[in-house]
Amino acid sequence: MLREDVQNRLDSLTKPKGSLGFLEEIAAKMAMMQGNVIPELPRKKAVYVFAADHGVVAEGVSAYPSDVTPEMVLNMLHGGAAINVLSRHVGSEVHLVDAGVDYDFDDSADLIRSKVGHGTRDFAVDSAMTSDQASQCIENGRAIARAAITQGVELAAIGDMGIGNTTTATAVAAAFGYDLDAIVDIGTKINDDQLKHKTEVIRKAIALHQPFRDPMDVLGKVGGFCLGEMAGFILEFADHQLPVVLDGYPTTAGALIAWKMNPGVTDYLFAGHRSWVRGHIVILKDMGLRPILDLDMRLGEGTGAVLSFSVIEAAVKIMREMATFEDASITTGSEQ
Amino acid sequence: MLREDVQNRLDSLTKPKGSLGFLEEIAAKMAMMQGNVIPELPRKKAVYVFAADHGVVAEGVSAYPSDVTPEMVLNMLHGGAAINVLSRHVGSEVHLVDAGVDYDFDDSADLIRSKVGHGTRDFAVDSAMTSDQASQCIENGRAIARAAITQGVELAAIGDMGIGNTTTATAVAAAFGYDLDAIVDIGTKINDDQLKHKTEVIRKAIALHQPFRDPMDVLGKVGGFCLGEMAGFILEFADHQLPVVLDGYPTTAGALIAWKMNPGVTDYLFAGHRSWVRGHIVILKDMGLRPILDLDMRLGEGTGAVLSFSVIEAAVKIMREMATFEDASITTGSEQ
Repeated sequence: MLREDVQNRLDSLTKPKGSLGFLEEIAAKMAMMQGNVIPELPRKKAVYVFAADHGVVAEGVSAYPSDVTPEMVLNMLHGGAAINVLSRHVGSEVHLVDAGVDYDFDDSADLIRSKVGHGTRDFAVDSAMTSDQASQCIENGRAIARAAITQGVELAAIGDMGIGNTTTATAVAAAFGYDLDAIVDIGTKINDDQLKHKTEVIRKAIALHQPFRDPMDVLGKVGGFCLGEMAGFILEFADHQLPVVLDGYPTTAGALIAWKMNPGVTDYLFAGHRSWVRGHIVILKDMGLRPILDLDMRLGEGTGAVLSFSVIEAAVKIMREMATFEDASITTGSEQ
Repeated sequence: MLREDVQNRLDSLTKPKGSLGFLEEIAAKMAMMQGNVIPELPRKKAVYVFAADHGVVAEGVSAYPSDVTPEMVLNMLHGGAAINVLSRHVGSEVHLVDAGVDYDFDDSADLIRSKVGHGTRDFAVDSAMTSDQASQCIENGRAIARAAITQGVELAAIGDMGIGNTTTATAVAAAFGYDLDAIVDIGTKINDDQLKHKTEVIRKAIALHQPFRDPMDVLGKVGGFCLGEMAGFILEFADHQLPVVLDGYPTTAGALIAWKMNPGVTDYLFAGHRSWVRGHIVILKDMGLRPILDLDMRLGEGTGAVLSFSVIEAAVKIMREMATFEDASITTGSEQ
């Protein structure tokens, strides 16, 4: 069995068994994905930042106006956002995806045009999108993934950018049955009263739209264009047995949709970090994903995900480059 | 005030305030150390692995025989150990220090010769070293640090290698008053009976040697050559206002000795990771150091420390490379 061969290899390396902890699990997961005891390093790494607007912002759930979404997209295109800095640091490409920003970008803007609409509708009063739009999101996400794979991307991260995205992510999780009070949190910097208001907006929306038939129904009623495209991206990467690294709460809500459609996707997912946003770890635990980093980050954009690339590559290199006890003629311990 | 200027700079970057969490604190610490709002990237990074033998191994406290210490040193010199792999990954030099291995390395071996003795004495029956040897450790560590600084090292990690090192580290912490039952743990892979035995060996040694007058007395009675040299190294780097990244439990016990001699050293220390070894976090908390990584690693050698270099450099780059709200003409939120 491959899993046993992988474990035997890990145990043959010059270290006490298991002493590299989670690094060993990451190495094993990469090996299993590739179907080889000794995994290859990814030839190309890239982060896809899915930007979209959320109609629910009309309910006053966010500290920022929706104008900030296109402004931040332009900042990323100019290389000045945190995701640009961290991607350069780890040697990753950055691709901006317009999944549904309520703004028409200039033709010259270097982004992936995948707009399903000019922002979703306000799910407090209506379905966020039509069922056709929900299907379109999945197909668009899959198409972006296929293009990435064609271009040689073998380790992808996904990030989310869009004012109101934590409200949408929370509504999606609640629609799947998570206890709203256990997962709701501020996204960036709203106060207690605003948080209470945000919670009530989501609670009423869930009551308005239930019952939810299936993941596509959840996506259509309370989802976001970005979440739907990320779900499609994940499904396609999993079909190609390639890894996707999740970032924070919105990307994990996107993964939740994909996971409900195909529980096997978690074999190809890493949780790049544990976000400071409370509900994040609750969902990750259910999906059996342990966060690689835990730095109280809550920025989004894929920042936590790309920072973890360095740890994932380190894990692969451990498997590829460390000497074995036999190579190094080292005395093994009493229980080795 | 510099600290305020640093905070203002962090808050001017295109992200919600504080949303990069611990990365922002790391960036601020680097800025404060350098005395500049925008810190420079370290020109050169290096890890110093302090290897030594521990006489207390004669009491049967370890799963491995002391022969493994020189064997692992040779493995590191040949580039096959985990610390070599991870150092190459993050672009760090690796320097092996023979602080007191019970073995005479060949003249050709490329290591820093800083041997204080051929392993310490068994502190279960005698002082681990003479007071002259304890002073020699501090001076040797300081000399290694001065040479590193002369060579341009601006970010150093320290690692420990030596069978029996967690037993020595635990004895040092207990001598400083830590509750033995709250900190004792297996180092690599001993069983419950062996752990009980190890605990009793340390308990009796503490009873034998107490009272402890001061840090040098602790080092002399129950310390190790590696711990003493690491303490000296840390003191010297702090004198030059340069950062040292701690690895796991033994390096932190070395830092504890330095901290008891000069409480200001923590301004120049980072905790690279939280070791799986139980007592580690207890000591880090007292020193006010938050671990950067938490991957259940317990290998030593500096592995957790060098892996965190990538995060420290990322934090510095955030400060240097991100656009400000003004640069990017971005609408600031309601409370900005």
